Amino acid sequence: MRPVFVAGVGMTKFQKAGAPYPDMVAEAVGAALADAGIGYDAVERAAAGYVFQPSAAGQRALYDCGLTGVPIVNVNNNCATGSTALMLAREWVGTGLVDVALAVGFEQMTKSAMTGSASVTTIDRHLDVLKSAHDVTDAPLMAQLFGHAAAEHMRRHGTTPEQLAAIAVKNHEHSTRNPRAQFQAAYTLEQVLADRPVHGPLTRSQCSPLSDGAAAAVVVSEEYAGSVEILAQALVTDDASSFGSGSMIDVIGTPMTRRAAHRVFDAAGVTIEDVDVIELHDCFSINELITYEALGMCAEGEAGRLAESGETTYGGRWVVNPSGGLIAKGHPLGATGLAQCAELTWQLRGEAGSRQVPGARLGLAHNLGLGGACVVTLYAGKARP
Amino acid sequence: MRPVFVAGVGMTKFQKAGAPYPDMVAEAVGAALADAGIGYDAVERAAAGYVFQPSAAGQRALYDCGLTGVPIVNVNNNCATGSTALMLAREWVGTGLVDVALAVGFEQMTKSAMTGSASVTTIDRHLDVLKSAHDVTDAPLMAQLFGHAAAEHMRRHGTTPEQLAAIAVKNHEHSTRNPRAQFQAAYTLEQVLADRPVHGPLTRSQCSPLSDGAAAAVVVSEEYAGSVEILAQALVTDDASSFGSGSMIDVIGTPMTRRAAHRVFDAAGVTIEDVDVIELHDCFSINELITYEALGMCAEGEAGRLAESGETTYGGRWVVNPSGGLIAKGHPLGATGLAQCAELTWQLRGEAGSRQVPGARLGLAHNLGLGGACVVTLYAGKARP
Repeated sequence: MRPVFVAGVGMTKFQKAGAPYPDMVAEAVGAALADAGIGYDAVERAAAGYVFQPSAAGQRALYDCGLTGVPIVNVNNNCATGSTALMLAREWVGTGLVDVALAVGFEQMTKSAMTGSASVTTIDRHLDVLKSAHDVTDAPLMAQLFGHAAAEHMRRHGTTPEQLAAIAVKNHEHSTRNPRAQFQAAYTLEQVLADRPVHGPLTRSQCSPLSDGAAAAVVVSEEYAGSVEILAQALVTDDASSFGSGSMIDVIGTPMTRRAAHRVFDAAGVTIEDVDVIELHDCFSINELITYEALGMCAEGEAGRLAESGETTYGGRWVVNPSGGLIAKGHPLGATGLAQCAELTWQLRGEAGSRQVPGARLGLAHNLGLGGACVVTLYAGKARP
Repeated sequence: MRPVFVAGVGMTKFQKAGAPYPDMVAEAVGAALADAGIGYDAVERAAAGYVFQPSAAGQRALYDCGLTGVPIVNVNNNCATGSTALMLAREWVGTGLVDVALAVGFEQMTKSAMTGSASVTTIDRHLDVLKSAHDVTDAPLMAQLFGHAAAEHMRRHGTTPEQLAAIAVKNHEHSTRNPRAQFQAAYTLEQVLADRPVHGPLTRSQCSPLSDGAAAAVVVSEEYAGSVEILAQALVTDDASSFGSGSMIDVIGTPMTRRAAHRVFDAAGVTIEDVDVIELHDCFSINELITYEALGMCAEGEAGRLAESGETTYGGRWVVNPSGGLIAKGHPLGATGLAQCAELTWQLRGEAGSRQVPGARLGLAHNLGLGGACVVTLYAGKARP
């Protein structure tokens, strides 16, 4: 593949009750095109990612941006949907099919959509493992899956509730600098620990909320002025290791993260040590903690200590989730992967304002869809050595 | 792009109440792999197309075929969903990303799914044109859109109810030779005309039914033994010409068909006269009739006469919808485009049994999704001159 660049990004504020999805898409796409200095007429293809809107919702939204007749492909991959749209756009440009592609992700989520059976029927392998070892309660099923993974990490590695809560404290603190975040309030460790219990050690402020929002990226070939390069990307799905061990840490996607990260680092010839800024899939605090290990930021079992070490925030070895992450910024499923792309693009251009990670040159995104896919993406700024 | 081949195809019988979708997918994919002589372990990527199943239903189904960890992308584009999955698979192989890709389409349709708001909210531009000129009744909205297009064709070109009905007679007759068709009964012209009215001139046997089913294709590079080549393909969406004229013939996608066909013929350097066998999107009899004109099989306004001429069935210039088409074979939305691929593959290999079009060398597929996309695909058999 030839080099692929992000020429522009845009996103709406994430919030509980956003505008209708066509309006959110118009806002995010309009911002991304303006950022790129490219008109919608120049877009040769679009990938639209969403989970809960109907078939061809991408057309419904993008037709408002222009009736240009270009191919539009609507994709879904659960919580990794946004990055799946980005993957198509990257490959369309990278293989030379087009020079300008648009990736847009959006979601109008409702309580009924999340608690309905739609999102659960595709993860029955995961639920089988859950049920084989645990009583199923009436807590949200995702919280039960991740809550049991947290309990398992605590049991096996001595991870503490305080270490889990430290992740929520960090991400909520980061979100106070992000005007597009759904929540923008700081929490103390005591407040997170004392918050409403959701499942196991997970309290409310350690869980991503229901969100509406949209995010977009204009992806281009070298002829266009793209300031941030997509160095490498991998999308993987579950293999037998997800379900074979009976470990809830495996069930919630850790082996997928490990494989995707390995491929990306291999392809780009870098290591996690070279990375400056990371946007990762903290749908629950425990998933950020486990992902530290899966990305190789620390040895297995050491993530609890890393979480409270200060090495994953400003002044530390990496800044993880400067945007506030899914916990604080919000998690409109289809938009999340592209919001990660937007944050890293701003960071690598040195335009992240009060959230700026000083000297950020390499950025890593990690987007995980339970029952669907894990996408890891490596970005480089122009200042890359 | 390098040459791309279909190495194997498979499909379930289409029927009103089929098996759960993972079982239908297993059957179609298993048949396609067996047909190709390729194991699931060799599949490097999969595109899964469906409209009414939940996010990541492709994983839910394909994990049963093997937990191989390969990228799976779930796509939707209304009734053109199956061909959209095929497009991704073709491009993945054609651009050299992989050598073996799987495209699978499936659908479990229910009355509630079709009459619910989901499939309607993305076509409000189409409905705006409808409402600006016509009273909306409580007939199915799709039948109203196509029924008004039929009335317009009759008014403008003198097309008769008998000419429309002749298409249904032909396709139902073809289906008597197709053991995988939902209906396999012949109708006389009088029976079609006297059938239950649905909207305007369209009677029940001129409309595609609700169907369950799955279809799959194994798409490969030249190194693999693919017996049928995908010569060219185009996916287009609406441009301003769909909605600007106020014509219902334009609203139901005719300009998309025209553009997609033009691109395919241009890319392959052939004309419609070179084509032997056609599977086209007869969701309603009127759409087959209008598509004759959009594909250039006759001049504008002449399609009624072509429909009753005998030139579109065995012994004529082309055989159109030897499978029985959507009207008789059934129309499980996500599966339809891949069922067209299966039929043309069998035809171009000379393996279509009592449906065989003698000497078929070039086959054309036309898959139309209202509000979504139109995909035209040109296939060549090995015996191509």
